[in-house]
Amino acid sequence: MPAWRNLLDKSLVANQKLPYAKFFQLATVRRDGKPANRTVVFRGFFNGTDDLIFHCDNRSRKVDELAGNPHAEVAWYFPESREQYRIAGTVEIIGDSNPDPQLAKVRQEMWGQQSDGARAQYTWPQPREPRAADDAYRQPPPPAQAPPLDTFCVGVLRPTAVDYALYSSENDRVMFSKQGENWTELRVNT
Amino acid sequence: MPAWRNLLDKSLVANQKLPYAKFFQLATVRRDGKPANRTVVFRGFFNGTDDLIFHCDNRSRKVDELAGNPHAEVAWYFPESREQYRIAGTVEIIGDSNPDPQLAKVRQEMWGQQSDGARAQYTWPQPREPRAADDAYRQPPPPAQAPPLDTFCVGVLRPTAVDYALYSSENDRVMFSKQGENWTELRVNT
Repeated sequence: MPAWRNLLDKSLVANQKLPYAKFFQLATVRRDGKPANRTVVFRGFFNGTDDLIFHCDNRSRKVDELAGNPHAEVAWYFPESREQYRIAGTVEIIGDSNPDPQLAKVRQEMWGQQSDGARAQYTWPQPREPRAADDAYRQPPPPAQAPPLDTFCVGVLRPTAVDYALYSSENDRVMFSKQGENWTELRVNT
Repeated sequence: MPAWRNLLDKSLVANQKLPYAKFFQLATVRRDGKPANRTVVFRGFFNGTDDLIFHCDNRSRKVDELAGNPHAEVAWYFPESREQYRIAGTVEIIGDSNPDPQLAKVRQEMWGQQSDGARAQYTWPQPREPRAADDAYRQPPPPAQAPPLDTFCVGVLRPTAVDYALYSSENDRVMFSKQGENWTELRVNT
């Protein structure tokens, strides 16, 4: 397990009483070369790896942006411990047409683990179109056991660099970098 | 005042008991076309405008990235009210050599308003170099009244689009867009 992952696991524990400590900001690059940024919910690590999982809707712009440029950077700030992780890597989107049976299984599991309310969001009307009538937001939730709706995707961020900073009075910064299969680290000035 | 600014002012009040509600994440694009993302501190609006101010060190990578591509997007999540603002625009960095006297005055004011500890950070050793001895972090703070150290910069983000979302049970999303000098808005599906 890379050293940054040990740090991150500790930060998650130290901040677990804050529900929004599981939210991070995901930056991507738009088709026009401008940056995009939004808050997403951390859904755990992928199958015993250090890859970060989030859920998304295949109609969201981030899915299209990542198809054009798979690079992303997470900024994840933990208010309680005053730590920041910047996690750079590439994102794979696991959607309805993914041919890999192992990835399809993970997508099915993630679908089933959600609340009814969370699953219902994937029935909602086309994002960014003029607001539909309220009834369009009141479809019954699709069942957890059935195959996921085709709008439901799982994003998997595979880290290649992590920039860790501690902003308490004992400031600290460590940069981790993946070289082949190995991680190196360097303690640096903040 | 654009409608998004009224919303944002209300969010700042509703979340003011959380010190970190003044932190937002700023995405930029690196020279190699990959996204970058980090947490910065909101320092108010520029001189009666709706432009967002943050402080930065001219040795930080974001200053170089913004020189290559001035576009940025803020993701600003307010935990207490469960609102997100995505604020896209261009950033001007006001540094030591800025010829505009009005901008230089703002930079001087922002320098003077900081705590001793905050000003001392601009004496710290070169960021991202191998960690210096602790003494290098113990320079006396530069005076508030004197001209700012040349490492001190002020970033001014000029918004051109704002994507507002409310994630409570009454979900909502409004997209604001600047056309010339005027803002238009459209209520859309989340």
